[in-house]
Amino acid sequence: MPDPTPDPRPASPPLRGTWYILPTPFDAAGRLDTGSLARLVRAAAAWGVDGFTAMGVMAEPGSLSPDEREAALRTIADTAAGVPFAVGCSGPTTAAVAAHARQAERMGAIAAMVAAPPLLRNLDVLPRFYRAVAAETGLPLIVQDEPAATGVVIPVSILLACVEESGARVVKLEDPPTPPKIGRLLAADPALAVFGGLGGAAALWELERGACGTMTGFAYPEILRAIRVAVEAGESADAGRLFDRYLPLLAYEAQPIVGLAIRKEVLRRRGALASAGTRGPGGPLDPAGLAALDAILDRLAIVPSLDPYIPTAAPTA
Amino acid sequence: MPDPTPDPRPASPPLRGTWYILPTPFDAAGRLDTGSLARLVRAAAAWGVDGFTAMGVMAEPGSLSPDEREAALRTIADTAAGVPFAVGCSGPTTAAVAAHARQAERMGAIAAMVAAPPLLRNLDVLPRFYRAVAAETGLPLIVQDEPAATGVVIPVSILLACVEESGARVVKLEDPPTPPKIGRLLAADPALAVFGGLGGAAALWELERGACGTMTGFAYPEILRAIRVAVEAGESADAGRLFDRYLPLLAYEAQPIVGLAIRKEVLRRRGALASAGTRGPGGPLDPAGLAALDAILDRLAIVPSLDPYIPTAAPTA
Amino acid sequence: MPDPTPDPRPASPPLRGTWYILPTPFDAAGRLDTGSLARLVRAAAAWGVDGFTAMGVMAEPGSLSPDEREAALRTIADTAAGVPFAVGCSGPTTAAVAAHARQAERMGAIAAMVAAPPLLRNLDVLPRFYRAVAAETGLPLIVQDEPAATGVVIPVSILLACVEESGARVVKLEDPPTPPKIGRLLAADPALAVFGGLGGAAALWELERGACGTMTGFAYPEILRAIRVAVEAGESADAGRLFDRYLPLLAYEAQPIVGLAIRKEVLRRRGALASAGTRGPGGPLDPAGLAALDAILDRLAIVPSLDPYIPTAAPTA
Amino acid sequence: MPDPTPDPRPASPPLRGTWYILPTPFDAAGRLDTGSLARLVRAAAAWGVDGFTAMGVMAEPGSLSPDEREAALRTIADTAAGVPFAVGCSGPTTAAVAAHARQAERMGAIAAMVAAPPLLRNLDVLPRFYRAVAAETGLPLIVQDEPAATGVVIPVSILLACVEESGARVVKLEDPPTPPKIGRLLAADPALAVFGGLGGAAALWELERGACGTMTGFAYPEILRAIRVAVEAGESADAGRLFDRYLPLLAYEAQPIVGLAIRKEVLRRRGALASAGTRGPGGPLDPAGLAALDAILDRLAIVPSLDPYIPTAAPTA
Repeated sequence: MPDPTPDPRPASPPLRGTWYILPTPFDAAGRLDTGSLARLVRAAAAWGVDGFTAMGVMAEPGSLSPDEREAALRTIADTAAGVPFAVGCSGPTTAAVAAHARQAERMGAIAAMVAAPPLLRNLDVLPRFYRAVAAETGLPLIVQDEPAATGVVIPVSILLACVEESGARVVKLEDPPTPPKIGRLLAADPALAVFGGLGGAAALWELERGACGTMTGFAYPEILRAIRVAVEAGESADAGRLFDRYLPLLAYEAQPIVGLAIRKEVLRRRGALASAGTRGPGGPLDPAGLAALDAILDRLAIVPSLDPYIPTAAPTA
Repeated sequence: MPDPTPDPRPASPPLRGTWYILPTPFDAAGRLDTGSLARLVRAAAAWGVDGFTAMGVMAEPGSLSPDEREAALRTIADTAAGVPFAVGCSGPTTAAVAAHARQAERMGAIAAMVAAPPLLRNLDVLPRFYRAVAAETGLPLIVQDEPAATGVVIPVSILLACVEESGARVVKLEDPPTPPKIGRLLAADPALAVFGGLGGAAALWELERGACGTMTGFAYPEILRAIRVAVEAGESADAGRLFDRYLPLLAYEAQPIVGLAIRKEVLRRRGALASAGTRGPGGPLDPAGLAALDAILDRLAIVPSLDPYIPTAAPTA
Repeated sequence: MPDPTPDPRPASPPLRGTWYILPTPFDAAGRLDTGSLARLVRAAAAWGVDGFTAMGVMAEPGSLSPDEREAALRTIADTAAGVPFAVGCSGPTTAAVAAHARQAERMGAIAAMVAAPPLLRNLDVLPRFYRAVAAETGLPLIVQDEPAATGVVIPVSILLACVEESGARVVKLEDPPTPPKIGRLLAADPALAVFGGLGGAAALWELERGACGTMTGFAYPEILRAIRVAVEAGESADAGRLFDRYLPLLAYEAQPIVGLAIRKEVLRRRGALASAGTRGPGGPLDPAGLAALDAILDRLAIVPSLDPYIPTAAPTA
Repeated sequence: MPDPTPDPRPASPPLRGTWYILPTPFDAAGRLDTGSLARLVRAAAAWGVDGFTAMGVMAEPGSLSPDEREAALRTIADTAAGVPFAVGCSGPTTAAVAAHARQAERMGAIAAMVAAPPLLRNLDVLPRFYRAVAAETGLPLIVQDEPAATGVVIPVSILLACVEESGARVVKLEDPPTPPKIGRLLAADPALAVFGGLGGAAALWELERGACGTMTGFAYPEILRAIRVAVEAGESADAGRLFDRYLPLLAYEAQPIVGLAIRKEVLRRRGALASAGTRGPGGPLDPAGLAALDAILDRLAIVPSLDPYIPTAAPTA
């Protein structure tokens, strides 16, 4: 399948660009569905993503048994076909993170993404935590700022200390509003690579602030890629038109609690997943939630398919 | 000034429709600016709002001295010219809420909006709190579900108990995702009136779930009104097109922390406010934040003005 | 070793009394130390505990690899010698909890203790979560109310719904102040068994409110046992004197963040653990923290030893 | 009335020692009771406190009307008779804090105590907030670290930045565990004065770490004073015995939510307050809560009275 849009930048380090956070597919009975996962990885590679992130929050890693985690990572490693991937390795202790990072390294990951220990109160120990984690793994670290999943809001001053103590050069942000936080991080350390997130619902503003890309699970990553390529090419009017056009779907999917079910339903319709089932307490999308999704896709004139969706800058309706 | 769009519903109780949460204008020196407030109230009445909410979170009521609060409410009461208004009366105790409610009643408000006491841990006392508040005031209550400002997430079962204990018939939601929460509330009590909020960034989905309207501070309430009128008229395609079209501005303004500064800057450009200053620790919009706003308004082809902005259902670009 | 104090109650169901939450011992290199764990289990049985709880919060279960968890549980099962034990089975999803519960059942546990999924916002789904968990396991459930570890504060009305939906008859409380919450739970459902917790620092007041016992990790469970036996015998003056006398140690150990390190240091001094090491970010006790512990033990005239510490009701200083 | 225990330190700056946080007395009808407040201030001066703090969290300042606040502060100022006092001036914005500080200065306060704006998420702005506050008032600031009341946990690194930006030399801690946090603050800035709090339930360990005193609302401040005097005189055994002896009452009063009702009931029994009523949602003490208090006072052989309670280091029972 052809690369859907040409990238104007000659070459970039691997931890840049449009990274796709993979969900974990389950079948109708709730079992891990590696067939769907392999199909999704192959499809996303064709959609032109620059990398995969496995075992992010949206992968529901806490719901996986050790065997399931191993099988899912093995599937991704075997199917990625040269696309680099990182692995979410968060855990409550250095030991737990290090064990995940060793597994990630064994699988061929290029980085370990690590959030703060859940519900950590004493943030003064966080830089030491990242230093200890770095000492335990040979993988580069991605410092993940993820307050919704961890209950921990990290000030910029402490994020910078975590980066410095651990040697990490990449930060992934989910603390809204992300655009000014990206600005503050880059003002203090311009060489840092900072990914935006938030389901892509602020992607344009993050990229305009200097984000190195978007790392999220939005079910049409080729749209985020097209926005980024336009920003990087200096075509801000095009970038804006693309972002505006797809924002209804970006915003609908980015909702808390129900967002994962929406995302998986879209991937099911694209043909990647056999089932949209999730394991968490959010549950499946209800009929009104499905109807709203139908209406959005209809208005956007998106016909879900595994073929890359080629976004156009100008509205086509 | 003419009513910008006709309302297809013959008559509705006052606590329905598009309610506008008024910010508190400050001048360049940080002083209360009642002149700007009066101008804004008159303009919003011309924009076709169904009601005003004074002293909501976005009014920064905690930053006002008692004299400033009195002066701001007096300005609103004197300028509303027949448009009904409610007053945010939240506080940590029944006594504090009751004092606010007495002031609101004296000013001519038709309802008192009350959130949970900030950082309340024992939610079992919340229905009693609302009952006690109701016993202290003759005003109808609006039960405000406002986790970001209070730190209190209220389960539907307890919201319903608050409604029942206090006799309130109106709920205002800000707990994302609001659309399914509206669905659960109305499934349990179909006669309840539930306003959506969230800066209007989920207004379409809230209204499709049966919200009685949107109560928020978005700086173009006439856009929210047009969306609601379309939904109520059964013109869902039009409603969807309007929502999609203006979502970039809705989403940009709906961001936490910086949202109020964005909103006030838009109102300044419309000519309503003399200054966009806020009193909270969020601070003013930085240059990159202003540039993103410029770009959004430019792409939407909105020329800010105190004249009603007549949204068109079909994109005009 | 003889039972240190006779229990005046003829017979009681197993989920009652003084239950001891086992920490997970690590050696100086941070490895799981099953030898110390076995020694601790045997010692605590001799101290007269009515049951063990494995994999509670204080066991740092999130820091254990699957093999370590299996080995620790195996050690406890092999050493408990007839003392019943429950297993903490909490996790973010039904699937994760069910997997833990199956392991617990296989090990011979008599109950699975389950807290709310971490950082759950929508408490309305919690009763369904407990019902789904109950459907997946043959073990009786202990509903664990654990806000510090989960970030979730559960109202009494929702705790009661969880109990009803799941058929659980036992609740373990950690939400301060526990004494009035016990009172509210028992007023609504007098047949419920409610354990107090909080490191025993409110044990007297919990028991006087009708708690069925104390389930916590305080390093001298025989003291909690003596207090409970006195309360149950109607000897409230004795119970009070015992509680007052040992409260300095109870309170010191009950501190958040540093409490586990204190507890393990005491167990090290008693001869049960080879090392006081923990895996979490709290870190080891600093010199001033150790000095305060020395002083408390000195004032209480406790000479740590594996022999049961027989508390006396009257101060002996 | 004689000073109950001599202070071994020759002279100390005023913001040191045992500071008493005054509750706000209400009569049986819930009205401000300035007579009781005056009686309490005179009594506490006789109990030997080194200073008063007005409008702390325990004063329920959010429940007071502006007139009530003014009247309460006036009463304290008029009755303090040379004992210095500070005023809690916290609020959501610089303007609100500054208004409180101006009032405090007018009343003759020697310092303004200021906590973080409630529910502040972006801690990076906190040092600027304190600098702005300092610029608005001539009063020395006490930086109040109060996570339970504000929802904001402040890392030591950011507390130090707040101190530096604002010129404050005094910090008041309520973030448990306070003893190691005191240690970390003083290691970084040994000249800082750090008050412990937590209702006095960790007072001994705070003072041993170098706290400059205890600032709290415990209803027998003369006991906290005696503990402090013993620590400062190097009589740590005496200090320990005093602390151990009174810990049951300290711990019982220090409970969240119900603590204020306990405290006011003790003050009522001492003869200072006409009524134990509070305005917050915690409500009055229930019968079981009162019975537990009766038992504690009985075991401690405390006969409540307005006369200073002369603590003895050795148990007298």
